[in-house]
Amino acid sequence: MPKRGLLIVISGPSGAGKGTICKSIINESDCWISVSATTRAPRAGEIEGTNYFFLTKEEFNKKIEDNDFLEYVEVYGNLYGTPKSKVEEVLNSGRDVILEIDIQGALKVKEKVDDGVYIFILPPSMEELKQRIIKRGSETPESLMTRFKSAYEEINFISKYNYAVINNTVEEAVRKIQSIITAEKCRVGRVKDSFFEIKE
Amino acid sequence: MPKRGLLIVISGPSGAGKGTICKSIINESDCWISVSATTRAPRAGEIEGTNYFFLTKEEFNKKIEDNDFLEYVEVYGNLYGTPKSKVEEVLNSGRDVILEIDIQGALKVKEKVDDGVYIFILPPSMEELKQRIIKRGSETPESLMTRFKSAYEEINFISKYNYAVINNTVEEAVRKIQSIITAEKCRVGRVKDSFFEIKE
Repeated sequence: MPKRGLLIVISGPSGAGKGTICKSIINESDCWISVSATTRAPRAGEIEGTNYFFLTKEEFNKKIEDNDFLEYVEVYGNLYGTPKSKVEEVLNSGRDVILEIDIQGALKVKEKVDDGVYIFILPPSMEELKQRIIKRGSETPESLMTRFKSAYEEINFISKYNYAVINNTVEEAVRKIQSIITAEKCRVGRVKDSFFEIKE
Repeated sequence: MPKRGLLIVISGPSGAGKGTICKSIINESDCWISVSATTRAPRAGEIEGTNYFFLTKEEFNKKIEDNDFLEYVEVYGNLYGTPKSKVEEVLNSGRDVILEIDIQGALKVKEKVDDGVYIFILPPSMEELKQRIIKRGSETPESLMTRFKSAYEEINFISKYNYAVINNTVEEAVRKIQSIITAEKCRVGRVKDSFFEIKE
């Protein structure tokens, strides 16, 4: 039986750059990036199983009943969720799974998977995060303040994570995450079992 | 104040190759390798502060009384110890300290320093370790058996360590240890404090 893969949860406030970092990790490694299920209709060019697993509301609700989501959320009337059975299948095949997810989602996953590796991506500074939020949209000063306050509040959840990586440059952040993955595979529990299993 | 360095304890059974690994890490990084104090007389070419800190028995005993050793041991009538104040001084300057030490010594250090990173070096296999022990000396079959049994027993202490690295090749083992050091510096506690200290 192959050694179980690692679940690597990459999370952080919106604007910290987790999407770019995840894309780069996927390009350089054999990790599988978790694909969400959704009840939203496919957009032009979106591929089943690559962009999303597209489900009907009935299928989605059945999966909720079967406890087959690591987490799920409703956004503007559409449901989005992380399918547990698919993640488990990949982990059991020995491959690592990357899950890119917002902070609320990550905290829900952590309640179900306590041997995951939880990495919090921080912007280079709070000022930089503010600038990125400002650049993102033509928002009113009030809604900007709300978004910025929410990012500030969310950062407090950092203590629930195992690691924090400051996104000064994507290359440096990716290198650090790769080191974290290598290090986690050297944890005594993982190495000990395989050493005595295979070698004697 | 610079961020405190990491104490990285590299340990394992005799014959696992920790000496070669440590030399290679020192060559490739800015870590300081801890130098032992000893009451043994200097041999030709040995340099104070590089090979050992040479102390008289009185000086050594005074340091024991002052609780200034992370661990010490007597071998063939000579005392050897890891000077606590020197290690602390380097850590406080922000530099990492590598401590290469046998298993008994590492366990004593762990009682005093609980935020150290404890890495256990494993041979590629128990058979390989046996061969290395055989190659080392012209020992009797009985003393070989004793040494091999002792190595076996010592490996049980692996559970007291944080990480285990199998020494298949020195290059791979060094790369893994460097990843462990990088990862440990990304632990939430370390990053969080400096992020909010410096950036705001």
